[in-house]
Amino acid sequence: MDNNQTEISTLGEFGLIDRLTKDFPLKNDSSKVGVGDDAAVLSYGDKDVLVTTDLLLEGIHFDLRYVPLKHLGYKAAVVNFSDIYAMNGTPRQITVSLGVSSRFTVEHIDALYSGIRLACEIYGVDLVGGDTSASVTGLVISITCIGDVEKDKAVFRSGAQPTDLICVSGDLGAAYMGLQLLERENKVAAESGNKDFQPDFAGKEYIIERQLKPEARRDIIQMLAKEGIRPTAMMDVSDGLSSELLHICKDSGVGCRVYEDRIPIDYQTAVMAEELNMNLVMTAMNGGEDYELLFTVPLVDKEKIEKLNGVSMIGYVTKPELGAAMVSRDGGEIPIRAQGWNAFTSETES
Amino acid sequence: MDNNQTEISTLGEFGLIDRLTKDFPLKNDSSKVGVGDDAAVLSYGDKDVLVTTDLLLEGIHFDLRYVPLKHLGYKAAVVNFSDIYAMNGTPRQITVSLGVSSRFTVEHIDALYSGIRLACEIYGVDLVGGDTSASVTGLVISITCIGDVEKDKAVFRSGAQPTDLICVSGDLGAAYMGLQLLERENKVAAESGNKDFQPDFAGKEYIIERQLKPEARRDIIQMLAKEGIRPTAMMDVSDGLSSELLHICKDSGVGCRVYEDRIPIDYQTAVMAEELNMNLVMTAMNGGEDYELLFTVPLVDKEKIEKLNGVSMIGYVTKPELGAAMVSRDGGEIPIRAQGWNAFTSETES
Repeated sequence: MDNNQTEISTLGEFGLIDRLTKDFPLKNDSSKVGVGDDAAVLSYGDKDVLVTTDLLLEGIHFDLRYVPLKHLGYKAAVVNFSDIYAMNGTPRQITVSLGVSSRFTVEHIDALYSGIRLACEIYGVDLVGGDTSASVTGLVISITCIGDVEKDKAVFRSGAQPTDLICVSGDLGAAYMGLQLLERENKVAAESGNKDFQPDFAGKEYIIERQLKPEARRDIIQMLAKEGIRPTAMMDVSDGLSSELLHICKDSGVGCRVYEDRIPIDYQTAVMAEELNMNLVMTAMNGGEDYELLFTVPLVDKEKIEKLNGVSMIGYVTKPELGAAMVSRDGGEIPIRAQGWNAFTSETES
Repeated sequence: MDNNQTEISTLGEFGLIDRLTKDFPLKNDSSKVGVGDDAAVLSYGDKDVLVTTDLLLEGIHFDLRYVPLKHLGYKAAVVNFSDIYAMNGTPRQITVSLGVSSRFTVEHIDALYSGIRLACEIYGVDLVGGDTSASVTGLVISITCIGDVEKDKAVFRSGAQPTDLICVSGDLGAAYMGLQLLERENKVAAESGNKDFQPDFAGKEYIIERQLKPEARRDIIQMLAKEGIRPTAMMDVSDGLSSELLHICKDSGVGCRVYEDRIPIDYQTAVMAEELNMNLVMTAMNGGEDYELLFTVPLVDKEKIEKLNGVSMIGYVTKPELGAAMVSRDGGEIPIRAQGWNAFTSETES
């Protein structure tokens, strides 16, 4: 590489996106909000239109040695639905583009699509377009999801206010622990040299399912609407809680405190972390791929939130000068750093 | 490959898409038209919303040995705009997803985006989202374009009626001839072993530009609107005139006759075909990547069409039982077959 060239890893994924998109001022009246949230917001009439897109590449985002194609199709669709729910919207349509190398057969692609179809059925979403082509290497899946939301009711990352409560749905870290288990069993299988090797997932079905077949939290969005709770900021947990908290703090111009002992963690996640000798809280903070909803609500909604099943209050929003920190069990403050998965670096950022 | 598995090439691109998308009935009121045209049509208010998407893979859709990254970015955006114009709409927003291998630097991606930005500026389109990630091999570009059209004014492939006139904008075959020239010069350069080899494009600038920097025919859409001409069917010429004529015939349930001596061909295209000893009319019929507009209009619009610059009447729509054929210079009829580029077969279909 010559001296005038810059390696992409020096910028990281978010740095690269910032650099690439900063010189694109919005020109059309229908473009309300562009790059920088879970989805763009467009104005085309009675409702606002939401658009989000994801690119999944074999060897980077999935490994077909332990991800069945049907599960991959399901997950590829659901993670896009999750981005639309994270804007307080409803997913309506998807387009699916595939690049397929010659080692894939029609039956393989049928399996992938059966997963996409199942996700579309469950979430009430229509497949409306796409593009299919050969690929010289591996499988490429690009999905764009379009949704709608009542006019001006989209919830962004930028609306959190000091004293707001920080809430998260479900539990965290399970998808990441599921991945660790899948990778371990795959390694054991390879080393055993036994073609009929059966991985041992007994008692760990939940973390496997969280990795292979995540769900988007439509139920949480519906419950919040029913209870008349409108989050001030919201996003889904795809890169990890630490990374998402920092996004909300940066975009809202605030700080935050989250309590170590409030982070919701499933029993199976804890057992697996113990087995693998990994720090459980770090796993829950940085694991990613949970697709839970992280959101902030005004303090006045505290009683309503306490009554909700499957929602944990994990902390509160502060003034920006206090920064973002986790309050440990002993009362100490540990600064939150982005340790989310970064596809452009082989090592975790520090 | 075991006996129960089917190679994708046995279905071809369109066969595979048909198979994959047939079991997706539309469920949402906002999904007006799904898979099968240049773009999907969604209903979200005063206007109809159009969505189209394209996936471009290195080694399949482009070769960076002779396509500069800025040109690639420009073309990747413009071909999506072309799909929206081909629905009689106006492109408004795009999302851009990139997969980038480690051999690309920040400066490379800047160059790619500078082309995307130029296209967005010229066509008045906003970049509103995307996804950027590492790739284990080569460059992947997935672009989704959203546009709008007056309610119920979208033009589909399915509206052609017997006696309609068949029209095409600009000229055909130049982009394909440009590609042949680029490939030839690249081969000569490689064989010369001379690092400073300069390709000889003198007098062939037009066909090079048609390949590297195609334009979407916004001007034609605006001209038709101004003259009060509403096409009965329309699509853009991406795979080749033969392939697109067959799409319109199939979707409209009609046949067609086009006249060999009416196919618009540029002088440089003809010279290049001569040099390479290729059949000129076959090149124009099957070349692809011209991004001209192919459309049909009622016979009563004949005089209006004759007055338009840059639009050729090449034939007429017939009853379905007459099939699709080209009328040769000697008056004979040659059946039209799809010989467009098919990414799933190494040889041309026959």
